[in-house]
Amino acid sequence: MKSFTINEIATIVDGKLVGNINEKITGLGELKTAENNQVTFIGSVKYKRLWSQSKASAAIVNESLNMEPDDKRALIIVKNADLAMAKLLELFSPEAPVFDMDIHPAAVVHESAVIGAGVKIGAGSYVGKDVVIGEGSILYPNVTIFDETTIGSNTVIWSGTIIRERSEIGSYCIFHINVSIGADGFGYRPSDDGRGLVKIPHIGNVVIGNGVEIGANSCVDRAKFNSTIIGDGCKIDNLVQIGHNSILGRSCIMAGSSGLAGSVTLGDGVIIGGSASIKDHTTIHSGATVGAGSGVLADVPAGQTVLGYPACEAREKLKQWVALRKLGKQ
Amino acid sequence: MKSFTINEIATIVDGKLVGNINEKITGLGELKTAENNQVTFIGSVKYKRLWSQSKASAAIVNESLNMEPDDKRALIIVKNADLAMAKLLELFSPEAPVFDMDIHPAAVVHESAVIGAGVKIGAGSYVGKDVVIGEGSILYPNVTIFDETTIGSNTVIWSGTIIRERSEIGSYCIFHINVSIGADGFGYRPSDDGRGLVKIPHIGNVVIGNGVEIGANSCVDRAKFNSTIIGDGCKIDNLVQIGHNSILGRSCIMAGSSGLAGSVTLGDGVIIGGSASIKDHTTIHSGATVGAGSGVLADVPAGQTVLGYPACEAREKLKQWVALRKLGKQ
Amino acid sequence: MKSFTINEIATIVDGKLVGNINEKITGLGELKTAENNQVTFIGSVKYKRLWSQSKASAAIVNESLNMEPDDKRALIIVKNADLAMAKLLELFSPEAPVFDMDIHPAAVVHESAVIGAGVKIGAGSYVGKDVVIGEGSILYPNVTIFDETTIGSNTVIWSGTIIRERSEIGSYCIFHINVSIGADGFGYRPSDDGRGLVKIPHIGNVVIGNGVEIGANSCVDRAKFNSTIIGDGCKIDNLVQIGHNSILGRSCIMAGSSGLAGSVTLGDGVIIGGSASIKDHTTIHSGATVGAGSGVLADVPAGQTVLGYPACEAREKLKQWVALRKLGKQ
Repeated sequence: MKSFTINEIATIVDGKLVGNINEKITGLGELKTAENNQVTFIGSVKYKRLWSQSKASAAIVNESLNMEPDDKRALIIVKNADLAMAKLLELFSPEAPVFDMDIHPAAVVHESAVIGAGVKIGAGSYVGKDVVIGEGSILYPNVTIFDETTIGSNTVIWSGTIIRERSEIGSYCIFHINVSIGADGFGYRPSDDGRGLVKIPHIGNVVIGNGVEIGANSCVDRAKFNSTIIGDGCKIDNLVQIGHNSILGRSCIMAGSSGLAGSVTLGDGVIIGGSASIKDHTTIHSGATVGAGSGVLADVPAGQTVLGYPACEAREKLKQWVALRKLGKQ
Repeated sequence: MKSFTINEIATIVDGKLVGNINEKITGLGELKTAENNQVTFIGSVKYKRLWSQSKASAAIVNESLNMEPDDKRALIIVKNADLAMAKLLELFSPEAPVFDMDIHPAAVVHESAVIGAGVKIGAGSYVGKDVVIGEGSILYPNVTIFDETTIGSNTVIWSGTIIRERSEIGSYCIFHINVSIGADGFGYRPSDDGRGLVKIPHIGNVVIGNGVEIGANSCVDRAKFNSTIIGDGCKIDNLVQIGHNSILGRSCIMAGSSGLAGSVTLGDGVIIGGSASIKDHTTIHSGATVGAGSGVLADVPAGQTVLGYPACEAREKLKQWVALRKLGKQ
Repeated sequence: MKSFTINEIATIVDGKLVGNINEKITGLGELKTAENNQVTFIGSVKYKRLWSQSKASAAIVNESLNMEPDDKRALIIVKNADLAMAKLLELFSPEAPVFDMDIHPAAVVHESAVIGAGVKIGAGSYVGKDVVIGEGSILYPNVTIFDETTIGSNTVIWSGTIIRERSEIGSYCIFHINVSIGADGFGYRPSDDGRGLVKIPHIGNVVIGNGVEIGANSCVDRAKFNSTIIGDGCKIDNLVQIGHNSILGRSCIMAGSSGLAGSVTLGDGVIIGGSASIKDHTTIHSGATVGAGSGVLADVPAGQTVLGYPACEAREKLKQWVALRKLGKQ
């Protein structure tokens, strides 16, 4: 078990220390359920009054709260308790699952694949023809990487994830469990006899930048031609659908169960709320935010926040909701 | 093929038998498509008139329908035809897929794992370091269990399911195919240079009670610290997202494609309809129901039914919908 | 790299050729990003003016645009540029991932399975007892097929897909990555003591016709009894939920993240937009269209287009949206 003095904790979070500093800190806890030898967090007035009953040995508190120390426990005064928490989570982060050997004998790696130094490949994983994996990248057990895909360095791919052929994946990415990259886009044409649908081949690929994280059971489809592109630093949550030929700029965020139909463009720093969906061939410009649950049917200007289904500028939608509520009561 | 007399069927469902009872029953059928030697079900007036054309040899009927027997077929009169159907489904339930051996030689089980009596592990499954699996539990082929996870007894885990490290799983659970348990929660902080996002480590885990069922391709994320908790007897459908630090009480139901953002609390017996989504840090109190398709943005009191996006009390929302329909016609 | 003369391209798409036809064509490109030796597409007036700056060596153009050739590049005049593009995508479609051997030694195939001529089975795949796979079908690595399932000929099953026992799959189908077929439907009854839920066994199966395509991470649940049925030629996108006992006619389309609750019936040629969800026991009759994001709570007549949540006839819903927008501005 990792253990630190309260002094060490205060130094790591760059905080001012007051009160009793003699206890050891061995973990993090929530205010109500923290135990002795844990550090907890007080970020807002609402939680301030709960401190007297907490069993935690120390609390990281926002300086704006002006809290007074008691003589039994420690307060560590910081500018931003959330940021301090993130740093302590890094400190207490346990070891990742072990690899007893770098490439497990029950993995199947094509002889033509180029595997970088320090790469680890778990049991049951499959690596196809001419795949290139950069140094320090990790494939946990039961990952499948198809032919001619390239993966940068220090990328982590969790179990159940499948990456289809000719994908280009950056460095320092994380693919969570059961992710699907590079399946065919969804496109058909009427058959010549007009009685059915004929599949349109999707001969493009998926290109993913550096530092991208993709959540469990999310999907990114390959392009019809050219590429479906996810820019550096994008963070994608679970069960997200990214349709073929969509293009995401840098550092976009898509929350759980949201989706982009085909050929959607996101600028830089766009935020898509949970369960929101975006119509095909739509552009959400840089810095725009789409509220949770929204259905976006038209382009969104840079920096604008839209909300609702059909989505419009957020304050306007809130007024509509108020008006509808009144109307229902008449 | 299993075969029972109509008398045996009547005894099993605790029903009163009238009409011709000489046929054998070898299966269940719907009223319209049932064949000879099948038993069918009549639960409402709407289906009563279809009985004369049905080929079924017997029908389980609600006593409230006052149906008259004919001399060719049997009626089994019960209080609740749905409940009788559930019992007969148990009776006719076929054998589960076979295991020719308990632990398949193509499974990879870490030498430190503790495997209970009668546990079965299919080909291609991976069981990590210090995993504990209770007696009678089943891992079908291509399951992945990471280090230090504990699984109770008589739990069934279907193929493609991944359970990440340090999860705690109860007894008599069912995890359907391609389920994702314990992926990192979705949380980031601005980078120190303000130009990107830094991952917040999620060092907590997932704790799942007894008798929990989780549907295909659903996801439960691990907590930031502490645990994401699913209480005893919860039933989760397919493609459901349960965000980090959410806490579900006992016997909650979440229908297909619904989702909880992070830190949502459900009381006991909460019902979440299909495709509904719940905002982060929201509490849905015990016995409340969220209608299908709803988007819940605020706490829901115990026992209340809410509906719509944004969700409000259901009758109020129905009035709003009526008012809007009128307004559109003006 | 595949290479064709512009003459050959024109013949394949049945187009009229004007301008400079001396370049070789080695691929397809979008108007803005196409390179020399690529062919591009101009289907609408909006894109016509971009042709002068394009680096493409040839453009397939709709005859309705009346475009004039220059002397450096070629125009291929066609009736339908989209259809021509589909044909060229087939032409330039690269080889599928390689199999160095038909049945990989790291696949586990039950001795009782019946495997047709030319079937390929990748590493880590599992094929259960009494499974039948028709000739020419392909199982990529890490596919799992349970006991007594039958698969027709020339069906392609991508990695991570799981097909549960007793499913019946047609010919010329495509199952993309991480698809889940045949998990138990979602059904429970109150326990006898009234304090919990008891699982209703789902002893039916899934029946899928010919030429069906199912997208990544989508789910089709098995029926309570009888079958969940997907008709010939249906095309299902990613992250789609199809509940137990649903029945889809021929050539239905379901876009990404849409869902059918249990016992939904779709006629022939029904189109379900992205993220739309359909209530249980509802019928959407042939030729009907459900708009993206809709929540359908009642039957939809043949040929009708419905929209919104709650969904109603599309023009009526658009009027409601206009009225609500006005109301919000008062």
